[in-house]
Amino acid sequence: MQAAVALGERGRGRTAPNPSVGCVIVNQGRLVGRGWTQAGGRPHGEAMALDQAGREARGATVYVTLEPCAHPSERGPACADLLAQAGVARVVIALGDPDPRTDGRGIARLRAAGVAVETGCGAALAEPSLAGFLTRVRLGRPFVTLKLAMSLDGKIALPSGESRWITGEDARAHVHGERARSDMILVGRGTYEADRPGLDVRLPGLEDWSPRRAILTRGNGVEGWARLGSPDEVFALEDVNDLLVEGGSGAASAFLQADLVDRMLIYRAPILIGEGRSSIGYVGLTSIAEAHRRWRMSDSRMLGIDRLEVYERDRHSPPPPTEANIGRGDARGT
Amino acid sequence: MQAAVALGERGRGRTAPNPSVGCVIVNQGRLVGRGWTQAGGRPHGEAMALDQAGREARGATVYVTLEPCAHPSERGPACADLLAQAGVARVVIALGDPDPRTDGRGIARLRAAGVAVETGCGAALAEPSLAGFLTRVRLGRPFVTLKLAMSLDGKIALPSGESRWITGEDARAHVHGERARSDMILVGRGTYEADRPGLDVRLPGLEDWSPRRAILTRGNGVEGWARLGSPDEVFALEDVNDLLVEGGSGAASAFLQADLVDRMLIYRAPILIGEGRSSIGYVGLTSIAEAHRRWRMSDSRMLGIDRLEVYERDRHSPPPPTEANIGRGDARGT
Repeated sequence: MQAAVALGERGRGRTAPNPSVGCVIVNQGRLVGRGWTQAGGRPHGEAMALDQAGREARGATVYVTLEPCAHPSERGPACADLLAQAGVARVVIALGDPDPRTDGRGIARLRAAGVAVETGCGAALAEPSLAGFLTRVRLGRPFVTLKLAMSLDGKIALPSGESRWITGEDARAHVHGERARSDMILVGRGTYEADRPGLDVRLPGLEDWSPRRAILTRGNGVEGWARLGSPDEVFALEDVNDLLVEGGSGAASAFLQADLVDRMLIYRAPILIGEGRSSIGYVGLTSIAEAHRRWRMSDSRMLGIDRLEVYERDRHSPPPPTEANIGRGDARGT
Repeated sequence: MQAAVALGERGRGRTAPNPSVGCVIVNQGRLVGRGWTQAGGRPHGEAMALDQAGREARGATVYVTLEPCAHPSERGPACADLLAQAGVARVVIALGDPDPRTDGRGIARLRAAGVAVETGCGAALAEPSLAGFLTRVRLGRPFVTLKLAMSLDGKIALPSGESRWITGEDARAHVHGERARSDMILVGRGTYEADRPGLDVRLPGLEDWSPRRAILTRGNGVEGWARLGSPDEVFALEDVNDLLVEGGSGAASAFLQADLVDRMLIYRAPILIGEGRSSIGYVGLTSIAEAHRRWRMSDSRMLGIDRLEVYERDRHSPPPPTEANIGRGDARGT
C-alpha cells in the first residue's frame, strides 16, 4: 500500500476536485501495473494500472488508496466495473470514498462480481495524501495548511518589514514542494502589496505545477487571482482539495480565528529578531487554557539549520478541563 | 571521564567561585575513589577521592575534569601535591585550569613528581559542566543562561499578562533542575512586580539548593536579593559561576542586546497565543542578516508535550557575508 500511496502523491495538486489515487497491481508476486490519477482528474489510477497490466490483471491483487468509484461518467466507466471486468481476484483498499456517488457502492459492486475486498489496510498512510479530497467531501471545504516561517521568537519581519531571509534554501525548497501539492495558494492583502509574490513552484521539473493563486481581502481582487472576502468563503471553493495559506500575519490570524486551519507547517530559523512583526495576531483567545489541546505535532525535522515542525489540528481531544495544566510555579511564562 | 563529569555535576550551584570538579580513581580496573567539590568549594574533588582510595591510590590512574590546583590555601594543600604524595601513577585531565594560580602549573608539578599526565581526554564532555567557572576566569563574568518559555508563536503571555500555564509539568521540573545548577537567578523588575516569584528549587531532595536571587532594575532593589542596574554589572559578580536569567521580556532583551547571553533554553509549548506579549523585545538588530550565525543548537528534546531546544552563542563563526542567505523567493517571511 505504501507504493500505492507514493504513486497517489504524484498527482497531488493537479486532480482537484478529484482525489489523486494511487494503484498497484500484483500478480503472483510480480508488479504488473501502476497508476495514479492523471492531471485534470482522469484517467483514474485504477484505469491506468489496469491498462498497464492488460491480461495480467486476471487473478491479480489490486492495492488502491481509495475505494474504486461506482459512478460511470461521460469521461469513463466506473473503476469498480473496470476491475471486475478485468477479472482481478482481490482488491485491497486503504480508505472508503465518502463521495455520496460511491460511499460503499464501489466495494459492494466488486463483491457482487465475486471479487474479494479488504479495507483499512494502510489507512493511516493514505489519509494525509487524500486529506484534501476527504475534507472537501466531508466538510464541504478544502483541507487548509498554514505555512509560518519565523525566528525562534516567533517573528516574521523586522519593524521595517524586512523579512528576507529568515529561513534558508532547504526550508524554502520544502515550501515549493508543498506548493506543488496544493491546488491553491492564498496570501493576505498586506503580503500581496508588500511582496507582490509570484507564489510559483521553483523546483526543477515542477515549474508547470504552480497552483492557482488567491488573495484574502475585503477590497478589490487581483487580476487572474481568486478573491476571498473572508476565510468562510473557502466553503465556496468547490474545486480545491488542498489550500495553502502562506501569510502574512493577518491572513494567518483570520484563518486561525475561524478555526479553519487543519495543519500548520512551522519553519523556524535559529535566529532571534526581538522587536518586529509577530507571526500571528489576535486569534480569539481569552485564556491560556483555551489554547491547549488544539495542536498535535505530527512531524519534526531539520531542513539545513532550520527546523520544520508539522502540527495537525486535534479535533478529537476533549475540551480542556477547568484545572488544565494547573500547578505551582512562579517566573513569567514558566 | 564520563563518570568524573557526572560526579562534578553533583556540586554544581554550590561551589562558586570554585569550580565543581569531578574525580574518579581506578586501580587495576577497580574503582577505588570518587569525589566532587563540596559545598562552599572545599574539599576539592581530588582530595575527596584520594581520601576514599587511601592506600589504594598508590599506582592508580586518576580521572579528573579540571587540572588539579597548584596553589595551597589555608583551607587545604594543593591537589597536585596531594596526588603526587599519594603515589598515583597517572592523571588524566579533561581541561586545563585557566586560573592564573594554576594554568599549567598543576600539570608541571605532577610531571616533576614523576606522575604521567594526559590532557584533553573528554574535554567536550567536561566543558559544559565547567562553563561557568571557565567563563568567569576567562571573561571575568558568569556564564549566562537565558530561559525562555513560550508558545509556538513566541509569546509568553496574553495581553492581560496571563501566563499560567504555557508549558507543562515536565518542562517546569526541568527549569527547577537548571535552577539547582545555578549560583544565581535573575528576573527583571516587571516580572518581579507581576509574579513575586520565589525562584526556589522545588524538586524532591533539592529544596536546599535554591540559589541566590537577583533583580535587574535601575530603581530600588529587593531585600535579600542582589540588584543589577544593568546587564554589564555581571562583571562585578565575582562569586557567581552560573547565572540563570529567567525573564521577563525586558531582562531577556537587555542581556541579549548587551551580547551577554551564552546559552538559551527555549521551552516551547504546542499552543498558539497570537496577540500577546512577545518573549523578547528590541535586541539592537538593524537587518535580518545580522541575526544569522549567532546561535547553534546543541540539544533538542521533548519534555512531555513541550519541546526544549538549547542554543549556544556561537562566538567563533565568521561574520555574516553581505550576501548572506540571499536567494530568490516571495511570500513574506519565507
